[in-house]
Amino acid sequence: MIGVIGGMGPLATADFLNKVIEETDAADDEGHVPMLISCDPRIPKRPAAILSGGESPLPRLREIRDRLVTAGATALVMPCNTAHHWHAELAADCPVPFLSIVEAGCNEALRQAGTGAIVGVLATRATLSTGMFNQALERLGLVPMVPTDDELDRAVLPAIAAVKAGRTLQAAGLLSVALDALLLRGAKYVVLACTELPLALAVSRHQGPAICIDTNRALARATVVHWREAVREA
Amino acid sequence: MIGVIGGMGPLATADFLNKVIEETDAADDEGHVPMLISCDPRIPKRPAAILSGGESPLPRLREIRDRLVTAGATALVMPCNTAHHWHAELAADCPVPFLSIVEAGCNEALRQAGTGAIVGVLATRATLSTGMFNQALERLGLVPMVPTDDELDRAVLPAIAAVKAGRTLQAAGLLSVALDALLLRGAKYVVLACTELPLALAVSRHQGPAICIDTNRALARATVVHWREAVREA
Repeated sequence: MIGVIGGMGPLATADFLNKVIEETDAADDEGHVPMLISCDPRIPKRPAAILSGGESPLPRLREIRDRLVTAGATALVMPCNTAHHWHAELAADCPVPFLSIVEAGCNEALRQAGTGAIVGVLATRATLSTGMFNQALERLGLVPMVPTDDELDRAVLPAIAAVKAGRTLQAAGLLSVALDALLLRGAKYVVLACTELPLALAVSRHQGPAICIDTNRALARATVVHWREAVREA
Repeated sequence: MIGVIGGMGPLATADFLNKVIEETDAADDEGHVPMLISCDPRIPKRPAAILSGGESPLPRLREIRDRLVTAGATALVMPCNTAHHWHAELAADCPVPFLSIVEAGCNEALRQAGTGAIVGVLATRATLSTGMFNQALERLGLVPMVPTDDELDRAVLPAIAAVKAGRTLQAAGLLSVALDALLLRGAKYVVLACTELPLALAVSRHQGPAICIDTNRALARATVVHWREAVREA
């Protein structure tokens, strides 16, 4: 059974669940991946903890992780990019495998873009400030590219805010601006390292979908693959 | 924290999660209902247990229920109409409240249709054969109406099968036929007592949406109301 540390936010958790179901080739209900999902938003805010010394979410994330493992989770995932700032600490003393959305997303970028390609990263300021996607892309032999401060303030962050407010068409327009800026500077693919952005992409008329990596979907795929292998070995 | 006994099927669980989020008036992530969701499809098939003496899902449902309560659930829900055949047994020795999708759906029908109204019920043969919706509607002073065997075989069951196969437009057409038959015989409202049917309704051009009760949404609303009251009392 896959344990899911969700609720950051709840819509990203629902989106992850839908994507796991979509990525599963199941003939009936029983063919689907068994999951135990904590969709509990009572977790200290991640951006504030990273950017401005706010309360750390780590103790609470550990508590949820342990609750899921005690209840029978044989592997863990966390469908939230920003929270992966604490992934190494959560995985270090974890008795079961803890798949990473950062690794899943960057592996997908490598598969699609090929070694040496320039890969853009669109994310919140908090996620970008941790450098975790840049480091993961570099480890795989890819060349990361992030938005300028101006692009972040004028396009990326307003796009994320528009999705959260339910204005996905407006978000799609802002996302196009952010994508075009990266493509003009030479990016071949772009990792959407924020679970809100794929929701804007879904209604976009931009060439985006073909060159974008949805980290939530990449994690969903990795989850299905992990479960299939676990079942085969059992 | 609300415990969710899901996975029957996984899509109905994802739909329930989305509807809880939609029905919640939250200013930010923290305003959402905390949930622990078992989306584990490894449960003996409910229709076979009801209709043809197949293995009972009750022991397995008890196991999942107890796991959720042990992990901290303070109330339970089960977004699957057919499984409510075992609701009374699951609720009887349960240490926390166990909201019923049947009661939530029929209460919603009463609110919309008013006492004495004829209310149709569209569901699987297994759910209809238990009579649980008819009994609940009668207890509330409503007059239940079920499809004929012919309507069931020609429209309702093919509509459900079409949704499961991803052919929602075809399902919408079949659902229209089933709805019209009930409306012609005098039904004022129709309870969609199967979590697949609202997915067909979403793409239908029928007058359906206005006169249909989506039991999964009714349960989502009841869940949000229960959580708000629990928070207020705490």
